[in-house]
Amino acid sequence: MSESAYADFHARAVDYWTLTKIVWVLLWDERVIMPRGGGEARADQVGLAARLAHETLISDEMARLLEEVRGYEASLEYDSDEASLIRWVRHEHEKNRCVPADLASELRRAASTALPVWQQARIDNDFASFLPHLRRNIELRREYVSCFPKADEDYDLLLDEYEPGMLTAEVRQTLQTLKEGLVPLIGEIAERSDAVDDSFLHGDFPIERQKEVEALILERFGFDHDTWRIDETVHPFASSSSPTDIRLTTKHHQTHLHSLFSTMHEFGHGLYERQVGASLARTPLARGTSLGIHESQSRMWENLVGRSREFWIYFYPHLQKAFPAAFDSVELERFYRGINKVQPNLIRIDSDEATYNLHIILRFELEQEMLGGGLDLADMPEAWNTRVKDYLGIDVPSDADGVLQDMHWAGGNIGYFSTYTLGNIISLQLWERITAEIPDLHEGFARGEFGPLREWLGENIHHWGRKLRPKELLERVLGGGLDSGPYLRYLRAKLGEIYGLTGG
Amino acid sequence: MSESAYADFHARAVDYWTLTKIVWVLLWDERVIMPRGGGEARADQVGLAARLAHETLISDEMARLLEEVRGYEASLEYDSDEASLIRWVRHEHEKNRCVPADLASELRRAASTALPVWQQARIDNDFASFLPHLRRNIELRREYVSCFPKADEDYDLLLDEYEPGMLTAEVRQTLQTLKEGLVPLIGEIAERSDAVDDSFLHGDFPIERQKEVEALILERFGFDHDTWRIDETVHPFASSSSPTDIRLTTKHHQTHLHSLFSTMHEFGHGLYERQVGASLARTPLARGTSLGIHESQSRMWENLVGRSREFWIYFYPHLQKAFPAAFDSVELERFYRGINKVQPNLIRIDSDEATYNLHIILRFELEQEMLGGGLDLADMPEAWNTRVKDYLGIDVPSDADGVLQDMHWAGGNIGYFSTYTLGNIISLQLWERITAEIPDLHEGFARGEFGPLREWLGENIHHWGRKLRPKELLERVLGGGLDSGPYLRYLRAKLGEIYGLTGG
Repeated sequence: MSESAYADFHARAVDYWTLTKIVWVLLWDERVIMPRGGGEARADQVGLAARLAHETLISDEMARLLEEVRGYEASLEYDSDEASLIRWVRHEHEKNRCVPADLASELRRAASTALPVWQQARIDNDFASFLPHLRRNIELRREYVSCFPKADEDYDLLLDEYEPGMLTAEVRQTLQTLKEGLVPLIGEIAERSDAVDDSFLHGDFPIERQKEVEALILERFGFDHDTWRIDETVHPFASSSSPTDIRLTTKHHQTHLHSLFSTMHEFGHGLYERQVGASLARTPLARGTSLGIHESQSRMWENLVGRSREFWIYFYPHLQKAFPAAFDSVELERFYRGINKVQPNLIRIDSDEATYNLHIILRFELEQEMLGGGLDLADMPEAWNTRVKDYLGIDVPSDADGVLQDMHWAGGNIGYFSTYTLGNIISLQLWERITAEIPDLHEGFARGEFGPLREWLGENIHHWGRKLRPKELLERVLGGGLDSGPYLRYLRAKLGEIYGLTGG
Repeated sequence: MSESAYADFHARAVDYWTLTKIVWVLLWDERVIMPRGGGEARADQVGLAARLAHETLISDEMARLLEEVRGYEASLEYDSDEASLIRWVRHEHEKNRCVPADLASELRRAASTALPVWQQARIDNDFASFLPHLRRNIELRREYVSCFPKADEDYDLLLDEYEPGMLTAEVRQTLQTLKEGLVPLIGEIAERSDAVDDSFLHGDFPIERQKEVEALILERFGFDHDTWRIDETVHPFASSSSPTDIRLTTKHHQTHLHSLFSTMHEFGHGLYERQVGASLARTPLARGTSLGIHESQSRMWENLVGRSREFWIYFYPHLQKAFPAAFDSVELERFYRGINKVQPNLIRIDSDEATYNLHIILRFELEQEMLGGGLDLADMPEAWNTRVKDYLGIDVPSDADGVLQDMHWAGGNIGYFSTYTLGNIISLQLWERITAEIPDLHEGFARGEFGPLREWLGENIHHWGRKLRPKELLERVLGGGLDSGPYLRYLRAKLGEIYGLTGG
């Protein structure tokens, strides 16, 4: 009886996931394909499909089915597809049932009201006009937090949305260690900022030729046209309709080559979804387990692969052939140093591999203060600017390039930022393991071979999908939790060599 | 009270239509964008969204709301948005409630089983392998018919799916008159088949230049990038996500220019959806009222505009500039005659403006015989071939180029074909009215001006959406019903001039 209840339960879980994937396809279309005139109808379509997905998840029918499969679940291995699906759906079902429908809809409404206001406020450099919406979003998050049993810290409940099961205290501790290592490192580099030249990365790079190099890289990485696409968009992202329909996006600029790295980044996200276990394909387990683990994959392909010397041993001759005027007189070593230049920047998304994390840390700290009420929201610009000066050593000339630069808080995504740096940290924890298990990994890159890395990730990380939560996954693969040590060691070694630093 | 019930009813009708449009977007993506690997997940997505749309339409809640708004409906003008929406939904609700869920699902299942079998049978020229599936589809249509109160003819209930409210007897009568006029006309032309040369339409036409001419035509027609797209696909079609998000597709071939005409055809479909009344936008009334009326629009832009002399007075210089080698030595008049050449062809979709209709008429006749049981389905190839010989004067060398050429019967679309020729007939009924009301219409074409036609269609046909059924619409605009007279007069005049025929 319990097994037949499982079939019913599975069918409803598939419906839930199918509706969610419909939303993904509609949003992909909106950002990549849709004529501007399609916006209003698309809001109807996305809103309805998302509502039906949510209703399916929290329905009384789902509650009943979850009860009926309880005995079956107990009889199964923890790691089995079936037990994992029940466990995941039960957790999401219970969590989402805690939030009253009115609050859930007000959370969405407030965010979609705030977004255009934020957009205009950023253009006008006018924090005051955005302030009431920021207040409202924070207030609503406090209400959201109050729907749940008391956690160790209120912020835990926000973080859980993006990094399920991760605790604020662990993240705080990890980021604190990172900051203590990063600030002096970046200070040392700042004193030698002339040591690296990247002027040759700005020039004239015809987009058709960029696309040829990009296609070559993707093909070596494992992209194929039967199961992947890549399209142009304004703000690049990765999405998917299923594990065999992966959609990357990119944005080419004729004056620089950022999109090469951004495409490798999105490939890392896409590969995670592509290599989820085939048996999970129609269920909500067919997804990366958290934003942090996801980001560890994208950062790995962008930075640990795409900014490595060996990667460019293979690809630099192709790049030189595509852009002879720019690169014929730039030797590989100079190019390698140029793409790894460290340069504090006001804008998070334009930042290098090292300083990027300080942008995240200050946001993570400010979010907790905003939520806790220790900081009057009217004082946010000042708090922001002070931290940027402290951590990055630069002055913020305007709120548009400061506290207003990111859309996350306007969109209600409070608790999200730290996952970017968790991704960096985790990517290096994994990398130490990977390079130990595949000693000739880098030699392979120099021959254009990425199969061993791809397979290792598939077998150790990707195939799990959401069967394991992030901490469980790290425990299995690494035998431990978050540790910023490997990332700090990596940055100090790589940047120390490039900048000729002495300490270690 | 009745008005607040209307708000609830309206919301459910919007949900129904939003789900339907989600299906359209998913199918557009499948045919235009999707990597092959996305097929299985897409079947889940389309299946679920279509099921939810259907459940919304036939739900007990909808039944209750339709009862509650009955008084309100009676208090409204027949043409009002509100009364029209209630009327349309009531009709579809009642009709769809007549069909048991099991039969509805078996109709879909049998069609999706038959389609790949048909595809292979066509490749193998093997009618016998398709026969059991054709039998099953016909059987299921008989079951479908038996769900409803007895109509004048069983076929009425199939036709109603595509041309709501139209009766078989009217269509039969109209097509009979058309056939009686067409067969001798085509016979006369056949005797003078050498009078028109179209050899210059086959050659080397680089696709990028075709696209430039196509873009110019579309721009003059009224296409803009804020509310339209055009993309490449295998079998061109028009779709939309909303009246302000219209999606045309086309298929270019380097060896000929068919896609120019096919794109004008799809533009006609797109324009109908584009110009539906803005107040209908979120509801199921925001659509062309029937396939026949829809086809009257596509055929009008393809043939009455796109194959007119005046159209090419404006565009032929552009075409010559795009393809000087092909057209520099071909004068406009010779080009005009070439694109209007009549040449009986085995294949419906490759046929000219005149003989095309005989392909339709024979299918319409055979469908009724199949449904009525007067024809053993095993004898279909013979029945087909005999009619092709009778009507078009040509021998059918293989079933692949005969009875197996179209996907409609495999896909369960029995009753569909006649709407293509109804479109031709109606396009000329409208055209006589349009040219009477806009005397300098053709002079405008010669100056590249299509605004007056577009506006006339918007005001007289398009804005109604599905508020009026096809017969009501024709009654309003023309003061009468179907009449093949205008179409026959048009063909005889145009082709008589081109071929130098004497009679009239």
